[in-house]
Amino acid sequence: MSTKGADEGFEARVRASFARQRVMDSIGATLTRVEPGAIEIALPYRADLTQQHGFIHAGIVATILDSACGYAAFSRMPPDMAVLTVEYKINLLRPAKGDRLIARARVVRSGKTLTICAGDAFAKTNGAETAVATMLATVMAVEQRDDLRQ
Amino acid sequence: MSTKGADEGFEARVRASFARQRVMDSIGATLTRVEPGAIEIALPYRADLTQQHGFIHAGIVATILDSACGYAAFSRMPPDMAVLTVEYKINLLRPAKGDRLIARARVVRSGKTLTICAGDAFAKTNGAETAVATMLATVMAVEQRDDLRQ
Amino acid sequence: MSTKGADEGFEARVRASFARQRVMDSIGATLTRVEPGAIEIALPYRADLTQQHGFIHAGIVATILDSACGYAAFSRMPPDMAVLTVEYKINLLRPAKGDRLIARARVVRSGKTLTICAGDAFAKTNGAETAVATMLATVMAVEQRDDLRQ
Amino acid sequence: MSTKGADEGFEARVRASFARQRVMDSIGATLTRVEPGAIEIALPYRADLTQQHGFIHAGIVATILDSACGYAAFSRMPPDMAVLTVEYKINLLRPAKGDRLIARARVVRSGKTLTICAGDAFAKTNGAETAVATMLATVMAVEQRDDLRQ
Repeated sequence: MSTKGADEGFEARVRASFARQRVMDSIGATLTRVEPGAIEIALPYRADLTQQHGFIHAGIVATILDSACGYAAFSRMPPDMAVLTVEYKINLLRPAKGDRLIARARVVRSGKTLTICAGDAFAKTNGAETAVATMLATVMAVEQRDDLRQ
Repeated sequence: MSTKGADEGFEARVRASFARQRVMDSIGATLTRVEPGAIEIALPYRADLTQQHGFIHAGIVATILDSACGYAAFSRMPPDMAVLTVEYKINLLRPAKGDRLIARARVVRSGKTLTICAGDAFAKTNGAETAVATMLATVMAVEQRDDLRQ
Repeated sequence: MSTKGADEGFEARVRASFARQRVMDSIGATLTRVEPGAIEIALPYRADLTQQHGFIHAGIVATILDSACGYAAFSRMPPDMAVLTVEYKINLLRPAKGDRLIARARVVRSGKTLTICAGDAFAKTNGAETAVATMLATVMAVEQRDDLRQ
Repeated sequence: MSTKGADEGFEARVRASFARQRVMDSIGATLTRVEPGAIEIALPYRADLTQQHGFIHAGIVATILDSACGYAAFSRMPPDMAVLTVEYKINLLRPAKGDRLIARARVVRSGKTLTICAGDAFAKTNGAETAVATMLATVMAVEQRDDLRQ
């Protein structure tokens, strides 16, 4: 993958911002891959994140997909920009059960203001992955202000 | 609001199922209103649910909106059905900051298999509400199986 | 409805731009209401716009809802801006059959760059309206360039 | 591509149903590829389908993407089923200008009742393709009734 469009420090910026997303630590999610325009986040199964059938709640699946999409966009932006999710749509394909969830996102189209990202979530058990959700997201670059420091 | 289309025990069924959504307890969300086809969930602000700017993470906003939409649909279904979210789309309107978040969902169209719901989330501070997100969701009724007991 | 946020010439600008959307004339759609932040478009039933069951094709329903959302946003923008649809999501609620379709859109949240709009489409027969679709759209304001003159 | 899950007559059924979508003929769209779970539709540029900037209207782009998604799902269903679009979300990536538009859709997940499809639209000029839109759609299989014959 080319680093075109990403400044050299993109990985450090993504990792520093991710570390400030306190919800990621709260749910046990970790950043497992950072490339320009492509991000992976992993989430081990935890019973305290489930819905009524014992599957990981769709909102938690969306939480890691949303962050993966946001950082995929952020990784391609100039260093002085912050990123906000404008909107996303998610289809839940199968129950989110397994040893861990993997969310992978990539930039589909990057513009000056808006970046469109796609993400897929997989349930991984004994090394085998099953697709559980797919997301299409719109992310906006905004100039950093004091209340929007990444 | 009419109770048309809802069996008499709908509120008990919704509350029992919500109590089994362990993620709701984990994030501190509570069910604050249960009417046939209309649900409200509240979530007090917690710093451990935030993204990098200190706002509640969009995925957590989506988590309570998704559950509100699902239970709005569920409240109108026959007692022997379980409910699954097929998909949703969410627009984030403003940063989710405030003393607490309120998610309100209602049934837009209810069919035999699919129910379409709309939900709005508000940040509430000193009694004043500001809209922070809006959701449009598709929910599917499925027959209860052993692994899908509400 | 307040005219706050709309310049005085908004109606003339909306009507002039709509007249340049050649597809509207091709399908027989007309602009039936122009208020600041609220637009209505009507489309009489035509058999040549149908899908395989004889209902108006969902894409045509989306076409008038998309334009209604775009002009609702446009009506609230400064005179020197052009408007582009970033994305939308549509739920089809019932078959689009009837004497005519009515698409109504309104601004949900208007920002400097992005405006979020909601729209509903109704089938109207003998004066009675039935909801057939609902849309949630994101619209972007862009500075007019030679190739983007409204 | 495997024909698993598609009956032998799927191509004839798709082509016969497409021929009954009168709007396809009205806008000049043709079915250019029919495989089990994958459909391509082409639309030559026509000035009478444009929005105010002279690009093909997003609703028309959505119309061919929606049909491509619907037939991708339909191609994998048993012969006695009809298909209805439940909902879709579309991101417009670039202005739809060029000699022709190409919409390609594929099945992402096929269930008994619901099929999730993804589609991409490209503008083609002098043999070169540029992505102009991407769609994520939910399609429902329904038993054929007299008013829902494919």
